[in-house]
Amino acid sequence: MKFTEKGAEGVKIAYVGGGSRGWAWGLMSDLVSCTDMSGEVRLYDIDLAAAKCNETIGNRFNEVEGAVSHWDYRATETLGEALDGADFVVISILPGTFDEMESDVHTPEKYGIYQSVGDTSGPGGVVRALRLLPMIEEIALGVKEHCPNAWVINYTNPMTMTVKMLYKAFPEIKAFGCCHEVFGTQRGISKMIEEKYGIAGVAREEIKVNVIGVNHFTWLTEAKYKNIDLFPLYKEMSEKYYESGYVKGKDDNWMNNVFDCSCRVAFDLFRRYGYIAAAGDRHLAEFCPGAWYLSSPEAVKKWGFSLTSVSWRKGDLVERLAKGRRRASGEEALAIVPTGEEGVEQMRALLGLRTLVTNVNIPNVGQIPNLPMGAVVETNAVFSPDSVKPVVAGEIPMNLYPLIARIVGAQELVVEAVCRRDAMMAFPAFANDPLVPLRTEDAKALYLEMIENTKAYLADYKI
Amino acid sequence: MKFTEKGAEGVKIAYVGGGSRGWAWGLMSDLVSCTDMSGEVRLYDIDLAAAKCNETIGNRFNEVEGAVSHWDYRATETLGEALDGADFVVISILPGTFDEMESDVHTPEKYGIYQSVGDTSGPGGVVRALRLLPMIEEIALGVKEHCPNAWVINYTNPMTMTVKMLYKAFPEIKAFGCCHEVFGTQRGISKMIEEKYGIAGVAREEIKVNVIGVNHFTWLTEAKYKNIDLFPLYKEMSEKYYESGYVKGKDDNWMNNVFDCSCRVAFDLFRRYGYIAAAGDRHLAEFCPGAWYLSSPEAVKKWGFSLTSVSWRKGDLVERLAKGRRRASGEEALAIVPTGEEGVEQMRALLGLRTLVTNVNIPNVGQIPNLPMGAVVETNAVFSPDSVKPVVAGEIPMNLYPLIARIVGAQELVVEAVCRRDAMMAFPAFANDPLVPLRTEDAKALYLEMIENTKAYLADYKI
Amino acid sequence: MKFTEKGAEGVKIAYVGGGSRGWAWGLMSDLVSCTDMSGEVRLYDIDLAAAKCNETIGNRFNEVEGAVSHWDYRATETLGEALDGADFVVISILPGTFDEMESDVHTPEKYGIYQSVGDTSGPGGVVRALRLLPMIEEIALGVKEHCPNAWVINYTNPMTMTVKMLYKAFPEIKAFGCCHEVFGTQRGISKMIEEKYGIAGVAREEIKVNVIGVNHFTWLTEAKYKNIDLFPLYKEMSEKYYESGYVKGKDDNWMNNVFDCSCRVAFDLFRRYGYIAAAGDRHLAEFCPGAWYLSSPEAVKKWGFSLTSVSWRKGDLVERLAKGRRRASGEEALAIVPTGEEGVEQMRALLGLRTLVTNVNIPNVGQIPNLPMGAVVETNAVFSPDSVKPVVAGEIPMNLYPLIARIVGAQELVVEAVCRRDAMMAFPAFANDPLVPLRTEDAKALYLEMIENTKAYLADYKI
Amino acid sequence: MKFTEKGAEGVKIAYVGGGSRGWAWGLMSDLVSCTDMSGEVRLYDIDLAAAKCNETIGNRFNEVEGAVSHWDYRATETLGEALDGADFVVISILPGTFDEMESDVHTPEKYGIYQSVGDTSGPGGVVRALRLLPMIEEIALGVKEHCPNAWVINYTNPMTMTVKMLYKAFPEIKAFGCCHEVFGTQRGISKMIEEKYGIAGVAREEIKVNVIGVNHFTWLTEAKYKNIDLFPLYKEMSEKYYESGYVKGKDDNWMNNVFDCSCRVAFDLFRRYGYIAAAGDRHLAEFCPGAWYLSSPEAVKKWGFSLTSVSWRKGDLVERLAKGRRRASGEEALAIVPTGEEGVEQMRALLGLRTLVTNVNIPNVGQIPNLPMGAVVETNAVFSPDSVKPVVAGEIPMNLYPLIARIVGAQELVVEAVCRRDAMMAFPAFANDPLVPLRTEDAKALYLEMIENTKAYLADYKI
Repeated sequence: MKFTEKGAEGVKIAYVGGGSRGWAWGLMSDLVSCTDMSGEVRLYDIDLAAAKCNETIGNRFNEVEGAVSHWDYRATETLGEALDGADFVVISILPGTFDEMESDVHTPEKYGIYQSVGDTSGPGGVVRALRLLPMIEEIALGVKEHCPNAWVINYTNPMTMTVKMLYKAFPEIKAFGCCHEVFGTQRGISKMIEEKYGIAGVAREEIKVNVIGVNHFTWLTEAKYKNIDLFPLYKEMSEKYYESGYVKGKDDNWMNNVFDCSCRVAFDLFRRYGYIAAAGDRHLAEFCPGAWYLSSPEAVKKWGFSLTSVSWRKGDLVERLAKGRRRASGEEALAIVPTGEEGVEQMRALLGLRTLVTNVNIPNVGQIPNLPMGAVVETNAVFSPDSVKPVVAGEIPMNLYPLIARIVGAQELVVEAVCRRDAMMAFPAFANDPLVPLRTEDAKALYLEMIENTKAYLADYKI
Repeated sequence: MKFTEKGAEGVKIAYVGGGSRGWAWGLMSDLVSCTDMSGEVRLYDIDLAAAKCNETIGNRFNEVEGAVSHWDYRATETLGEALDGADFVVISILPGTFDEMESDVHTPEKYGIYQSVGDTSGPGGVVRALRLLPMIEEIALGVKEHCPNAWVINYTNPMTMTVKMLYKAFPEIKAFGCCHEVFGTQRGISKMIEEKYGIAGVAREEIKVNVIGVNHFTWLTEAKYKNIDLFPLYKEMSEKYYESGYVKGKDDNWMNNVFDCSCRVAFDLFRRYGYIAAAGDRHLAEFCPGAWYLSSPEAVKKWGFSLTSVSWRKGDLVERLAKGRRRASGEEALAIVPTGEEGVEQMRALLGLRTLVTNVNIPNVGQIPNLPMGAVVETNAVFSPDSVKPVVAGEIPMNLYPLIARIVGAQELVVEAVCRRDAMMAFPAFANDPLVPLRTEDAKALYLEMIENTKAYLADYKI
Repeated sequence: MKFTEKGAEGVKIAYVGGGSRGWAWGLMSDLVSCTDMSGEVRLYDIDLAAAKCNETIGNRFNEVEGAVSHWDYRATETLGEALDGADFVVISILPGTFDEMESDVHTPEKYGIYQSVGDTSGPGGVVRALRLLPMIEEIALGVKEHCPNAWVINYTNPMTMTVKMLYKAFPEIKAFGCCHEVFGTQRGISKMIEEKYGIAGVAREEIKVNVIGVNHFTWLTEAKYKNIDLFPLYKEMSEKYYESGYVKGKDDNWMNNVFDCSCRVAFDLFRRYGYIAAAGDRHLAEFCPGAWYLSSPEAVKKWGFSLTSVSWRKGDLVERLAKGRRRASGEEALAIVPTGEEGVEQMRALLGLRTLVTNVNIPNVGQIPNLPMGAVVETNAVFSPDSVKPVVAGEIPMNLYPLIARIVGAQELVVEAVCRRDAMMAFPAFANDPLVPLRTEDAKALYLEMIENTKAYLADYKI
Repeated sequence: MKFTEKGAEGVKIAYVGGGSRGWAWGLMSDLVSCTDMSGEVRLYDIDLAAAKCNETIGNRFNEVEGAVSHWDYRATETLGEALDGADFVVISILPGTFDEMESDVHTPEKYGIYQSVGDTSGPGGVVRALRLLPMIEEIALGVKEHCPNAWVINYTNPMTMTVKMLYKAFPEIKAFGCCHEVFGTQRGISKMIEEKYGIAGVAREEIKVNVIGVNHFTWLTEAKYKNIDLFPLYKEMSEKYYESGYVKGKDDNWMNNVFDCSCRVAFDLFRRYGYIAAAGDRHLAEFCPGAWYLSSPEAVKKWGFSLTSVSWRKGDLVERLAKGRRRASGEEALAIVPTGEEGVEQMRALLGLRTLVTNVNIPNVGQIPNLPMGAVVETNAVFSPDSVKPVVAGEIPMNLYPLIARIVGAQELVVEAVCRRDAMMAFPAFANDPLVPLRTEDAKALYLEMIENTKAYLADYKI
């Protein structure tokens, strides 16, 4: 990489995973429309064909109208080839297949346990972590060997445990995790500003927030737009739409989209705690006692969000793969559409092309003084050349502390259990999850069944 | 007070409350059999007649066979008189009457919430704290005014919040909370040593333990008898008696005693966490999700412990009051029987008459580094002249951390809410309790009903 | 204050002190050239005439060429009038007169102790603090009464202790301290970039640094310009100019200016510690053992900086006062010249008109985890609407830790001593200062003499 | 090892070093007079002949009048043999010879730097650590290999850095450092009690103290005998004997003994700080600016203590070796004389034969919350079976904090430098020592000269 008048040239990005995920295309779009970076992207996926398909798509993006920089895409056969000398490493992998995820999400239903996502927390999150984290460990060791100075950007869930594992495996790693859930909350507040004050088009970045918590259970303890304190506004709107739910816009109606929600969970949490829960309801609900929002499919419907069934995901995947083939073949045209994701902006800031203050997931070094040091937390951070430094978000308020400390303890325990490849060591995290109100023997039976269903990926484990 | 060859003479003890509690008599017995302290005990109770009854009993103890020191008992009409110039203050009060406690314990049953004690944690503990802590605040201010250098020993529940309030109201106070639950666990282990190794009569003090946690949810992370590691023993016994329960001795059969238990909850917690839960099952169960041990009266029976109904307490009180009258009148003889409590030994150590290492409840100044500083926790401490210094118990293990951090957060919040006399500020602690798996509106309805039932004591509160 | 299309109108600034200081005029210049703020400035000084003089000058600035916003200046007779309802409070006062400062700086010379500034640390800093901090306490209490929501910006030295006192007196205060010393280091590095790489005109804000330490003894542990690590550059330059000193530019020759320096002290500190000391040599030297840089006037000269004598300050003051009168009368023309100070930019960021990451002095809430919480430290912080949140700078490196921890302890002690108005309580800070290698009795004699010389301001103290 | 009615039999002790030190004989005497332990002692010394000499002496002790237990002594040719399966490891080694120590202590005198001991802190302590700590690392690795469950008791100086290195090399080690300096202070106070109150014969263990600090610069922040606060007593005595010095008893006159002192330094420190410095003046003085107590041999004499010259040590060694030969040969009779050291009592407590609360040097896990975690500090601790748990001593008072934090930082740095075998990394600790008020180049020249003088032991180092 070198700096010229055009900015940074020859930037090397390794993209691990993403063979089957639509938003790899989003990154391609964001990169090619970036004026002051260019370079190459190496694509590594355990499904080489999928990586090759993305190689073709990526290279075609250079020709799309609106492309202002050039990126060479290349699928690699090994992880090492992709990582070799990289400036940035992007991780976005699916651990195992949707068959294993099907067990993660749906096996607990036998015990009346419903999960809206099942990839972060709850029984599904724990078992997914057992499967995923050894892969992450391998990637971290690959970074250590092939590109120890690279910045590693993780998008894989469970986010917190993934980032923690990166640091466990390679303590000097420069890694952080990105998630757009907070952005969604900012966008919702922007709509509220329009409704209340008639100020339209406030960009989500203009909503200045103090972010605190852990990924997917992140909270805003302050929110301002210029001199307007947004808490009274949020309180008013959360009461006004408490029953009906909040429809962020015509196309955002949650009933039309399996990923959307009506913010009723967030509004209920605001009632309980007085702070703004800054993630989608599907995620928030999973960190709370099952009786609150996930007691039954009917309750979920009443709360205005959806259970993302894995059968839906499977169907969606088929469609996406087909779309990928059409895009690679040229049958379907490509277009540059800003994703609203921040990955490219973060890279620019790390290269010194701008300053950026945004929320990330990194180990606690003091940004949340009343959580254990070293635990991965989500707060704002300042991005500057070769540096991500967290902003002190302050102490977790005492009413939220029990919920968030619970998560931290559970996730620290699971990661340690994975490091030791000791599945039963993680059991207390599983059995004490608020979604799992089972007697010890039932909890154990469920855990063992779920492990059995994913055992192809747990060969190393003592169970 | 002065020191002579006989030890400390003229020791002044203020006893606040205890008018109706049997174990005030226990302290009298322990004091009069102590060879190197003598002095006076001032008795203050809002029921002056009860205090006067104890005055008579206390003075009669000087004449009992085996009495080796002399103590003058005197009931006082005001708190200030009792506290004036005291060396020690003992607090053991009942906040309100058993009618309020009846609501604390039984009102939640409407929602399927069962509590085995209802005075420490759970919905009953929170509402009891609202009622109790202003009284504790008043006592602390009395100490500040009348005997700022006194050592204050609390026996009142909820222990953790009471001690916290003492420090909130008078930060320079020298106070600690005592509880005998750990002793009971030590005694149980002593029986196990006998069963396994044939070593009889090991005194509970000889079982050396590392104590960590919060009162009534206290854990042993180490336990040794000489060079014997007691964890393998406990593990073996917990498995052997997992189903049948552990009967500590003929007279200890839990079925005969509303306060006793079969340790099945402790054994189940050992299975889950690998550490020894050092309190009676009635207490331990209340800190866990209701579904684990308190889902129904039948489940409680199966787990081998009892729900202490307040109607039973009321009957028991009538008996104790009658007993008090008989003892005061001389109708019933007094006898010196060692209680096994440590209050008198603690006083001796604080006067420099011995060294003592035992478990107490005091604010965290580093003894548990991964819990918030200032939160009241239970660990061992060294008692020496005019000094109680906690022993560093270490970090809460990550599998227990979520449970204990939850309690700490909840109790810190309730105490703060009481300081502000803001009942709704405490609601998140109530609604997030693992015994309260209710929707927000149901939780609020229950909370408000319970508050209504105790409103005579909450005149100062904003509700 | 209200927001319009023009930005923030009706901003109310209280300026406390500054009657005799040139740079009040700098703030006037910066304000009047700010496009998106306008309002009023109330001037309070114990010398009302001086404040009135500034009132005239300030109002005249509205007419100067290049003025783009309007500010009304008004001298007030009381502090309360100035503070009433203020949005911002600027503090820049001289405690006592230069006669007291003369004692602070020069009395220690009897014992061979030389101070280059004498207003921050060392014997002069301690005694100045005794005199100053009660005034600061009064201002803090005024803020509490008249404008509790105002942001308070301090420029007064000793900076660290002043900010600490503001928080001691009014713990909810929103205060921070600003200092331009780090900027000077950034500018010096900019020159080095030009010398080495031929890249001219790099703005100091483009030099991205991690700031850590305490005011006037602040260190850079990271410094980057785009992808250039500036540490090797600094190392090279510090060796190249180690003997000769570094002349930042023709007009910056330290020999021409009592405030300037040749960076030889900073270079020597770099040799010792491997980090960039980011303040002028005059300040840096005062935090080190006297034998290093301040053993004699000759040694100072050799190290390439100057002892700022108070007689020089007195002469300079006469000139500045005359200049003030000429400017007020119109005899001397006013001109808008950017000061390079950040006060106005900080105000804009606090109003939501921009985002700013810069270094400030605020209490430690986790930004430097291995210094005591609550101690005032200097690190970067993020300024956003109504919010200053520190960036986690990390732990003080162990080779610097002894020096910086020493300062923190000393300054905490002095502030506590002032709160108790107990001069002898501050004595250990005085006597353990590395500039004061005296035996106990000599240290005490010097301390008492210096106190005697400033006793007019210490009437409240127990000595 | 097994437990019988007689206590612990078959206890295995490895004694590393001690070949030439008189007090190995003291341990022999203490062991053989211990009623409830017996076993074997393996002696390893790089001087095998010296170890063999001690073997003979040790075995002869079993025959001395008053011997109540039996210990088999055996010199081993390798460290591993000595450590194999040991229950306890005692470390007491001299790094290098007195020739190297001669340089440590006396080379700095060229620059006017006088050291009274030169083995703990100051220039001598730093260079000695460079030489010693690799040996300690080797011992720690030996413990890891041969007896990972052993308790390791260190008596070697520099104590703090030695203990730190043990934990660095083998983080799971169970090690602590013992020092009798606090005992000496307790004995001095006992004499003061006799002088003031006429109470004779108060045992030093009855003086209850709160110990805080680092080895050889340890402080008492509380001291009580029964209900007597000993601070007013100490204050009175420190003033009474400030000028004359305090002679603890006829035989203790400091003028008669190179190791003794008159407490004038401790009294002067009490005047400065208001806390009791609990070590001999020879040690205390070395942690203070040289100008205070060590500016010249004359000043030292005036302060009432001695510079321990290495030539004296050399002579003393010759005498001790001769004495060893006489004792081994039977020419000189052995006698059991209690040493007043606590090593044997600590072993008994670790075996569960008693409870002991005493001061030790171990890593900070919360016992001193305002010092860095992990740094080795000295406080009280509770010894129980297989457990040493520190007592929370509280925060270092702010007037002492600068001095003690300085030491902690310096020692942490030196240990890290040794781990990296990077001598220049330790230079800032050397050059910032309060005994070394030299310019950078002089400090470096001295450092390099001292390193040169000990280079035979620094072959691994990058210099």
